[in-house]
Amino acid sequence: MAATASEKAIRQVIEARNAALAAKDVAGVMASGAAGFVSYNLAPPLKASGGKVGLAGWFATWDGPIGHEMRDLKIVAGDQIGFAHGLIHMSGRKLDGEVVDLWFRQTFGLKRSSQGWKIIHEHGSVPYYMDGSFRAAIDLKP
Amino acid sequence: MAATASEKAIRQVIEARNAALAAKDVAGVMASGAAGFVSYNLAPPLKASGGKVGLAGWFATWDGPIGHEMRDLKIVAGDQIGFAHGLIHMSGRKLDGEVVDLWFRQTFGLKRSSQGWKIIHEHGSVPYYMDGSFRAAIDLKP
Repeated sequence: MAATASEKAIRQVIEARNAALAAKDVAGVMASGAAGFVSYNLAPPLKASGGKVGLAGWFATWDGPIGHEMRDLKIVAGDQIGFAHGLIHMSGRKLDGEVVDLWFRQTFGLKRSSQGWKIIHEHGSVPYYMDGSFRAAIDLKP
Repeated sequence: MAATASEKAIRQVIEARNAALAAKDVAGVMASGAAGFVSYNLAPPLKASGGKVGLAGWFATWDGPIGHEMRDLKIVAGDQIGFAHGLIHMSGRKLDGEVVDLWFRQTFGLKRSSQGWKIIHEHGSVPYYMDGSFRAAIDLKP
């Protein structure tokens, strides 16, 4: 498989995952990942394994659809291993009334298996302000 | 080059980079990266390119050495492309008196060139508390 074919396949996996997140489709999100998945999430702890735990509960905290759009997606891939990164705009309203309008960074690590390309590592974050406040920078725009 | 040889070479690049950061060695840090480097840093903005800008100035804010130790480094690599992730413990004292004792997550994306493996993407972060405070979680331990 040429690198460009790998990149095309990886783009499809990431776009399907983003669509599943927007649709609150737990099975769809899980289908993009593989065993051994290690994630560094927006929320604590520092590191999590698996992913299904918590996803349905998190979806249930949203009032209506979740906006989940990716920008500046860059994919670097060989025949078997690849990584990708870009910015995600998450938006919508939570059941508690919070209005979410958040840009964050997302990095994926992927591996090709007999079932196609699968995400085995995910890192999502915002930076934080170095002004002594230690506030998460949830108000940045690209 | 077998995947295990790639992993060994990538480990050396990351360890050399960590050592250069601890030694405040700008040239050493820069040597681990390649053109097109995109970084998602602990500090804003969301996304930065290059890396040399700011590094010398940041080193100058430390009073003495920078502790920079990596744990749980996992490397996944093919012949030409790889990625790696782990937890970093950064510690020391800043000139303004702040005592740093921070665990954060770090992901690297790497590509093999004629000059060997080079880091072309870096993502460092802490999560933030979802309790309405939006505080960066700088007090987590692995």
